[in-house]
Amino acid sequence: MTDLAAARTPALTSLPIDALAHRTDAAVDFADRHIGPRGAETAHMLAQLGYESLDALVDAAVPATIRAEVPLDLPAPRSEPEVLAALRAIAAKNTVMTQMIGLGYSDTITPPVIRRNVLESPAWYTAYTPYQPEISQGRLEAMLNFQTMVADLTALPIANASLLDEATAVAEAALLMRRAVKGRPNGVIVLDAECLPQTIAVTLGRAQAMGVPVVVAELTDFLPAGLGGDDGVIGVVLQQPGRSGVVRDLRGIVAQAKAAGALVTIAADLLSLTLLTPPGELGADVAVGSTQRFGVPLFYGGPHAAYMAVRTGLERTLPGRLVGVSVDADGAPAYRLALQTREQHIRREKATSNICTAQALLAIVASMYAVYHGPDGLRAIADRVHDRADLLARELRGAGVAVEHDAFFDTVRTRVPGRARAVVAAAAERGINLWADDDDHVQVACDETTTPAHVLAVVLAFVAAGAAPDADPVAVTDGFGLAGHGTSIPDQHRMTDYLTHPVFHAHRSETAMLRYLRRLGDKDLALDRSMIPLGSCTMKLNATTEMEPISWPEFASIHPFAPREQAAGYTELIGDLTAWLAEITGYAAVSVQPNAGSQGEFAGLLAIRGFHRATAAPGAPARDVCLIPASAHGTNAASAALAGLRVVVVATDADGSVQLDDLVAKLATHGDRVAAIMITYPSTHGVYEEHVREVCALVHAAGGQVYIDGANLNALVGLARPGEFGGDVSHLNLHKTFCIPHGGGGPGVGPIAVGAHLIPYLPGDPLVAAPAAGQGTPVSAAPFGSAGILPISWAYVALMGADGLRRATETAVLGANYIASRLTEHYPVLYTGPNGLVAHECILDLRPITKATGVTAEDVSKRLMDYGFHAPTVSFPVSGTLMVEPTESEDLAEVDRFIDAMIAIRGEIDAVAAGRWPLADSPLRGAPHTAAALTADEWTKPYSREQAAYPIAALRADKYWPPVRRIDSAHGDRHLICSCPPIEAYEQ
Amino acid sequence: MTDLAAARTPALTSLPIDALAHRTDAAVDFADRHIGPRGAETAHMLAQLGYESLDALVDAAVPATIRAEVPLDLPAPRSEPEVLAALRAIAAKNTVMTQMIGLGYSDTITPPVIRRNVLESPAWYTAYTPYQPEISQGRLEAMLNFQTMVADLTALPIANASLLDEATAVAEAALLMRRAVKGRPNGVIVLDAECLPQTIAVTLGRAQAMGVPVVVAELTDFLPAGLGGDDGVIGVVLQQPGRSGVVRDLRGIVAQAKAAGALVTIAADLLSLTLLTPPGELGADVAVGSTQRFGVPLFYGGPHAAYMAVRTGLERTLPGRLVGVSVDADGAPAYRLALQTREQHIRREKATSNICTAQALLAIVASMYAVYHGPDGLRAIADRVHDRADLLARELRGAGVAVEHDAFFDTVRTRVPGRARAVVAAAAERGINLWADDDDHVQVACDETTTPAHVLAVVLAFVAAGAAPDADPVAVTDGFGLAGHGTSIPDQHRMTDYLTHPVFHAHRSETAMLRYLRRLGDKDLALDRSMIPLGSCTMKLNATTEMEPISWPEFASIHPFAPREQAAGYTELIGDLTAWLAEITGYAAVSVQPNAGSQGEFAGLLAIRGFHRATAAPGAPARDVCLIPASAHGTNAASAALAGLRVVVVATDADGSVQLDDLVAKLATHGDRVAAIMITYPSTHGVYEEHVREVCALVHAAGGQVYIDGANLNALVGLARPGEFGGDVSHLNLHKTFCIPHGGGGPGVGPIAVGAHLIPYLPGDPLVAAPAAGQGTPVSAAPFGSAGILPISWAYVALMGADGLRRATETAVLGANYIASRLTEHYPVLYTGPNGLVAHECILDLRPITKATGVTAEDVSKRLMDYGFHAPTVSFPVSGTLMVEPTESEDLAEVDRFIDAMIAIRGEIDAVAAGRWPLADSPLRGAPHTAAALTADEWTKPYSREQAAYPIAALRADKYWPPVRRIDSAHGDRHLICSCPPIEAYEQ
Repeated sequence: MTDLAAARTPALTSLPIDALAHRTDAAVDFADRHIGPRGAETAHMLAQLGYESLDALVDAAVPATIRAEVPLDLPAPRSEPEVLAALRAIAAKNTVMTQMIGLGYSDTITPPVIRRNVLESPAWYTAYTPYQPEISQGRLEAMLNFQTMVADLTALPIANASLLDEATAVAEAALLMRRAVKGRPNGVIVLDAECLPQTIAVTLGRAQAMGVPVVVAELTDFLPAGLGGDDGVIGVVLQQPGRSGVVRDLRGIVAQAKAAGALVTIAADLLSLTLLTPPGELGADVAVGSTQRFGVPLFYGGPHAAYMAVRTGLERTLPGRLVGVSVDADGAPAYRLALQTREQHIRREKATSNICTAQALLAIVASMYAVYHGPDGLRAIADRVHDRADLLARELRGAGVAVEHDAFFDTVRTRVPGRARAVVAAAAERGINLWADDDDHVQVACDETTTPAHVLAVVLAFVAAGAAPDADPVAVTDGFGLAGHGTSIPDQHRMTDYLTHPVFHAHRSETAMLRYLRRLGDKDLALDRSMIPLGSCTMKLNATTEMEPISWPEFASIHPFAPREQAAGYTELIGDLTAWLAEITGYAAVSVQPNAGSQGEFAGLLAIRGFHRATAAPGAPARDVCLIPASAHGTNAASAALAGLRVVVVATDADGSVQLDDLVAKLATHGDRVAAIMITYPSTHGVYEEHVREVCALVHAAGGQVYIDGANLNALVGLARPGEFGGDVSHLNLHKTFCIPHGGGGPGVGPIAVGAHLIPYLPGDPLVAAPAAGQGTPVSAAPFGSAGILPISWAYVALMGADGLRRATETAVLGANYIASRLTEHYPVLYTGPNGLVAHECILDLRPITKATGVTAEDVSKRLMDYGFHAPTVSFPVSGTLMVEPTESEDLAEVDRFIDAMIAIRGEIDAVAAGRWPLADSPLRGAPHTAAALTADEWTKPYSREQAAYPIAALRADKYWPPVRRIDSAHGDRHLICSCPPIEAYEQ
Repeated sequence: MTDLAAARTPALTSLPIDALAHRTDAAVDFADRHIGPRGAETAHMLAQLGYESLDALVDAAVPATIRAEVPLDLPAPRSEPEVLAALRAIAAKNTVMTQMIGLGYSDTITPPVIRRNVLESPAWYTAYTPYQPEISQGRLEAMLNFQTMVADLTALPIANASLLDEATAVAEAALLMRRAVKGRPNGVIVLDAECLPQTIAVTLGRAQAMGVPVVVAELTDFLPAGLGGDDGVIGVVLQQPGRSGVVRDLRGIVAQAKAAGALVTIAADLLSLTLLTPPGELGADVAVGSTQRFGVPLFYGGPHAAYMAVRTGLERTLPGRLVGVSVDADGAPAYRLALQTREQHIRREKATSNICTAQALLAIVASMYAVYHGPDGLRAIADRVHDRADLLARELRGAGVAVEHDAFFDTVRTRVPGRARAVVAAAAERGINLWADDDDHVQVACDETTTPAHVLAVVLAFVAAGAAPDADPVAVTDGFGLAGHGTSIPDQHRMTDYLTHPVFHAHRSETAMLRYLRRLGDKDLALDRSMIPLGSCTMKLNATTEMEPISWPEFASIHPFAPREQAAGYTELIGDLTAWLAEITGYAAVSVQPNAGSQGEFAGLLAIRGFHRATAAPGAPARDVCLIPASAHGTNAASAALAGLRVVVVATDADGSVQLDDLVAKLATHGDRVAAIMITYPSTHGVYEEHVREVCALVHAAGGQVYIDGANLNALVGLARPGEFGGDVSHLNLHKTFCIPHGGGGPGVGPIAVGAHLIPYLPGDPLVAAPAAGQGTPVSAAPFGSAGILPISWAYVALMGADGLRRATETAVLGANYIASRLTEHYPVLYTGPNGLVAHECILDLRPITKATGVTAEDVSKRLMDYGFHAPTVSFPVSGTLMVEPTESEDLAEVDRFIDAMIAIRGEIDAVAAGRWPLADSPLRGAPHTAAALTADEWTKPYSREQAAYPIAALRADKYWPPVRRIDSAHGDRHLICSCPPIEAYEQ
């Protein structure tokens, strides 16, 4: 509340040191709020491990060879009010305009009830990806609503649970079409020249990396002849409405494409599909697009949820996540991720996509926007948007302005020879951003927020710029609206229903909507209720001070293609953040464009490829081999494949470390073809490998580059810098280490940090068709990716300072070792590094227990739900194990509560081993238990209801009830249902 | 997100009508979000009642004699983005300064985790007063924490759950002391001249109304001799630190007072009590004060929670609410309101206070601030605040400024002859508000947000104003801080511990705090989960758009005594709102100063008394009789008593209507003594009385005034105006009719609306010692009461417009009649008005059922919890009944869900009647059922677990679990425990 007041503090230039020593404004440093254990708790945990101090523990755990020599050079930590004040000052440097640029981004009204109760609700934003579906039914239902909404509006039966942005969605569609058309490996993909510029740039980059031929062509109502080589055209991507706003009759092109054996993707504006014939009815095989304008703020480019829907028969080639309906152990309907075997982390180098996340939180907002408005409301919005555009076109024509298309939805393209910049400038003076495509054309996009007043202001801007020969301001104003209005969608009207499911009709009042959001949120177990000890996922505090600014209009309402000077606040914020991240990682520069870790990997590998291409000796073979340790995360291999690299696996020791001998051998074999090695540090096994510098040196000696996956950076910040101990490039996961919440499965942000030699190959501006010199291929639709959530990480670093960050890392290491130490007698800890210590996570080996008793890691993970916990990571990186990462944010009480639960479960395992219960009838296999099951009149289990519900007494004070019992995932894959089931399905 | 953009819309003066017809920005009018039923739902409900249209229903329900003749003249409804934009524009007219005025209001840092998860969380703010304790355990625990915090810090054993503000708390303390000292009816209360000015004004006004002698006296370290008449001094109120900032050694005065047989109240700054000897240790009997600086924003004066604590022996005289510990049916500890028989609504005209609410939401924020900081954190904050003040005093003295006191906590009082206004002006130029007490004295109050930079700026302001003879800017700046610092609290150090309970030590990280807030919130049933069908309490939607602005710094961070020109936004907002409320109620003017309905009643009656005094014929007897119908709410009588009026009860008919014969008789008896009649319309029985105009006319003819209680205004807005059909004054409950949330038992806002002849008697400025001409006695500490939440009601009216408000009223009437119609065959509806219709609520008569079966209204209300509902109002206005008010915000599905639950419960009652279950062993008497009870291994009830948990199938999809079983309230009153019990109490 005091941030403005603090901002007004007079500037003081000559305060003596003594006075400055008084200056902290918070009773407690933020670091002490972010970090769970402190004082006596830390001492207690250290005592368990036998160390005197955090320093001593860290010295023992982290190899001296990699330790950073100097502390991080970051600004002194600031208090929460100071950081909010600083962010308000930065935000004030952005200029909020009426955004009529369009090009894939439209302003929208986020219903406040959704803003407060989803975007600003910890119950939603602190949730993890729904890999444990029994405790994720709320967000799975919301995502199923999303899929249903997309499927209905596109008239295609199967939609996924969102993709990262429209541009990558088109790229994924292009690759999907290529996979689906068999036997024509050199077939060409044709991109409609009416595709969005960023779509073209990103898709060309993706295709180029994989050697897929893609051409951009003007497509009117026919396919140009002569495209493609012997294999012809295998896929066509059309955009409707086109980037110029035009709405075309696509039936002819689609028929031609089909006749040529090509598949058809239509990139469609979702809102327009309430009025226009949808892709499925036009015969498209695939539809893609953005759902941003369904209530998701512009956010200077992201995060937003893209969508993809496909016809029957293509569902198993669909990239990204797919929510489906299955049944639980009692036969009740239950949601879970479907067809997971398609996913990249399982398919590794055979993967066809490296997408491992969705934009869950934004997809949920978009789905709730549809739930709240319903089909009638959406159609009314679309009608009004079109009505505004139609009004604008009439008024402009009346004023003598040439309007290029007769048929359009929301965007009016004008021809104003030589006057385009002047029109844009005149509109900007009126607080409105338009788009000058070149010197002669201006485009104006209407949206949900456009009023007649905006329309008139735009017309007056044309007049003021001398671009409306037949009008003067008075005549335009006096006559405004008198020409009436009609429609400019002549022959493409949608005739079919959509959103007929009751969920899109039941929550029309704010009260009903509020309760629906609460009810769904309550089904789920997120960080706001308990620890989520997920190894490799770093579920730490997402502090309120970090989260609050993203809702501010000055951050939320900036168009990604607004003139850069209107985004001066963003420029400053991104400048700060990238400089801090470079300092933390020891690299020379950082790009925030990649909007997920997978995109960061891809961008990093592209940078390496670009570097090799530019520096290769004449005639040298292309460096196209990527060495990947056997223990690596599957996404690494998938990213390498997508970057056009061949994966060569390097053997690893039992502890997951790279086998030096094998590395040497592989380098000897592939020497001059080696582009890179991708390693994770600390290793995916949660161990600080001693010889990482040696690994890096060997690869460098062979001419390769070193990619260090930043997944485990939370074990390094302030202690060691990958750019110093051997890395050439790393991607970071801001949603792991830097406090961006997981949002129930997205957004993520995956910036890449590179050495100086790779700077010229960082992702370029997606609006520039051909990458400029000194810029690499763009990997996201927006220049700065998911810019709208970068204030979160900025705030985290500003609040913590160098000292706080280091202490956080040390405490994370302390927590993991404390758990390992207390649990190892109950569950063997699989790997340890120097001095028997782990890094920031530890792997509990269930395999001997499974062998002896049949109790699996899955049983333990489901039973933990009855104890009120989200499971640790199951079977990664080693099948049959649980990987536990407490993070620094969990205090001793919560860590002990988890340990107590695990020990109690071990007791249950022992009871099974002792024959007290048969495994099949044990609380372990029966888990999770619902309240309905435990209050049933009949109870036939050999264990008691109380044992099922309250195995430890503390649960009586705070009990989470899973809403469904264990879900049969295979059932759902056999009977694939990926849209909302009828209400009757829920009747008992 | 688009509010700023909308604000930037160019002003258009000449838009033709046609274009304006396009202008709505939301797909759905807000009224359709606020109002639950629409279209087919409304038609369905009307069909049940046999009416064609809402108009027809309303014409049949509401007597034509009272209907307003013209529609409300209010601004056209605006969309949510438009209203947010308008409020941003208004907010921008307030100036956020660094507030160093003090005088009972200090700036503070609301921890963001508390802001987002309490102040901005529907789970907390939409909750009702915890009269149904089984579903209120979360907020009851938070309020018990509050009581423990106050008791610990004041060192007095019993604290209540908050009072309205510090000034009224002192007034209540004065009256408490008067009651507690027996046999000296004319004894005098002495008010320390160091009391806050608003405290003195409000207390004098209260005392005067009741004829209690109060004098203000300079008290240094002794009681002046000669105070009081024959009965001497019976009570002393001291302020520590004093309004001038001084910290005095109060032991001498306290000893003198005790020796004189007087009780002692100390008004103390709660933060200072972490450092200073607390009131209980000084020998005080009572301590009062504000808890605002514990994280509650300044809010331009309110809402804030005041506190009161008393020594053992005084607990039964304590005003306000008191949370205590009792046990539930299983013997588990459980919280509930204690000693409710003390309360005004039970004691009626014997009441000693009319307080019927607390500032629950703000008390919860303050308690959570203490939970989050703990004793060490609070002491560190206090140390830092004092340190700043000490630094300031040293620097000022060094600059030659006379500092008045050697001992102070946070406020430094200076003597700057003739320069005070200049100093304040110079500080304002530096963005800082100071306080000029007169032309010669400036006070500077430090707080949690004060930095050395602020301190230096203040010193520089003194220099710039020529008030620091020994210094120039350069010397002051260069030497700043070099004088070191120390303490200016010489001999009053606190030596005892406080906040030793584990709850003040367990939630130190943000993660732990977040989870504690979530855990408590989850225990409670608020509007965000289900209907709260409370007759007379109007639990309607608190829309997000209405709620969001109260967090904005421009509303939250304004000091109530800031120069009026810095609050221009508030002035505009209050001006709009009072004009709209006057239009809606048909009165001439409105005062928003009363910060609860009870205060509104008091203020309204004071206005009537003032009017009579001013207009009485010479020698006429004082009009001191207040006629109150037998059916009135008890608070009416209590307020009359506090206003110094004698209550004369007027008989009512069986339906709660005033008996005209008895009224005529009472007027004949008391004719020229009648000051007023207080009636509620529609009556407390939920009926539109036909003859209300006649009642008013009779009283007017006798020279009396008509007070129409606005409790049921939700049945009138847009249909009838009390100021038109006979009222002279009404109070409104903005927390009922105008969408301010109940906050779990406060804040409320109770503006009064008056006819033109009463305007001169509206509450005056509390900072003016003697009410100015044309102003009445102030009733709250702040000029505009709880100004900080007025944006909520402003937004509601702006969003709804005249049409929306009328439709809301009509729909509220429809909902109540639909429920009455559907339930009457199961539970007889007690009263109906014209055409067998009720107004906006209906009374279900359980008495015949109770007589026949023993099942009580309480049984039904507790059983409803198992069905996921908050009970209707129990036994008001008629014992043994339930009063149901659905409000307009509940849609048909929710209303039907409630009806289904009530019908199912009736089936259970019938089963008891049929002998299927003995009542004592029935699900009705066993209710509510906890999950723990239903999953116990043993189950001995004759009804099944499933019958207990899931009596209707819909509950399987959405089940709320009460955290405790039925609470034994009497047990708790016999064993009074009003602070946090030891953890061991919860062990099984």
